[in-house]
Amino acid sequence: MAIRYPGGRLFHESDHSAKKKSVSSQVIYGNRGMSLEQEINASNQYYLTHGIAVVHKKPIPVQIVDVNYPKRSAAVIKEAYFKTPSTTDYNGVYKGKYIDFEAKETKNKTSFPLKNFHEHQVQHMRACVAQGGICFTIIKFTQTQEIFLLPARVLFDYWQQQATGRKSIPKQAIIQAGYAIQYHINPTVPYLDAVDKFMATIQ
Amino acid sequence: MAIRYPGGRLFHESDHSAKKKSVSSQVIYGNRGMSLEQEINASNQYYLTHGIAVVHKKPIPVQIVDVNYPKRSAAVIKEAYFKTPSTTDYNGVYKGKYIDFEAKETKNKTSFPLKNFHEHQVQHMRACVAQGGICFTIIKFTQTQEIFLLPARVLFDYWQQQATGRKSIPKQAIIQAGYAIQYHINPTVPYLDAVDKFMATIQ
Repeated sequence: MAIRYPGGRLFHESDHSAKKKSVSSQVIYGNRGMSLEQEINASNQYYLTHGIAVVHKKPIPVQIVDVNYPKRSAAVIKEAYFKTPSTTDYNGVYKGKYIDFEAKETKNKTSFPLKNFHEHQVQHMRACVAQGGICFTIIKFTQTQEIFLLPARVLFDYWQQQATGRKSIPKQAIIQAGYAIQYHINPTVPYLDAVDKFMATIQ
Repeated sequence: MAIRYPGGRLFHESDHSAKKKSVSSQVIYGNRGMSLEQEINASNQYYLTHGIAVVHKKPIPVQIVDVNYPKRSAAVIKEAYFKTPSTTDYNGVYKGKYIDFEAKETKNKTSFPLKNFHEHQVQHMRACVAQGGICFTIIKFTQTQEIFLLPARVLFDYWQQQATGRKSIPKQAIIQAGYAIQYHINPTVPYLDAVDKFMATIQ
């Protein structure tokens, strides 16, 4: 039986399956166009809905200067400025533990530049580690689509040396001290597998 | 010896001590004018600088629609809208544990209205508790300046009943199931003392 829309137009199932396909493609081949941030957000959504972990990206901090309250509609922010974040982007809870991390990508092939971090972010990670939090960075080399979890203490070592030494972390050091994360279908970036390995070394 | 400013104007120490006094009054008598949010932010700052805990308020989530990038000055957000937060306001790490809470004040004298919470915030707290997080609400009765830590599970009970039952948590129930927080000088709201008592009951 032909199915029709209320207006009388015929319903073509193929229209819908085509749409559906493009949506699911977006999810499965996420690594072909999504930024690392989008991939991690999607993975966090997966972890949340499956009761595995609760991790959220913090909103971008803005200083709101002027807000308009039009009648009968939503408040409009008319003037605001970006503030420097005082923490990392992601935190949450996994197996009762506090986890805290920053996700960064680089086009570099052989090293990860330290200029991707701010002093206060490193300070924040130090404070979290001191409280027994699980802190790390997720680093993606976009040229090769390789992703690693790098424990915060490795970042601290290079951060401390940078005044006198090199201004980046060699990829070789990341491979040796970090944990590789393989792309997957669901979640796209299964970084908690790497967190498990990392947690096993510090308990 | 008279001390002068570069312009030649005399320096009067009394001007400065007067200013100093007003600043320290703001801190000590915080509960006489500060909102609960300001009091908790100040307490978190104390906990952070003394290496006791790392807890931050999350930035207000906004949907940015239009940004202006003027030459030689900071980017200006020209149009943005407030988004409904999908989590609670505060989270962080204390003694290796993930803590997560919402801070709310009420002018009511005998009960705390449940309309102070959104469904997704309660859902978020449920998810955090399921992961072993320490979740609670800090409730302030502004009329009497009384503050309590209320474990999330008590909120869950009343939240579930509200479709058929009362739409608020009686103050008596908060006194019985919660932990009173006494105002202090530093930190203003020493809520981690109450967290210690709460944590002792769930471990």
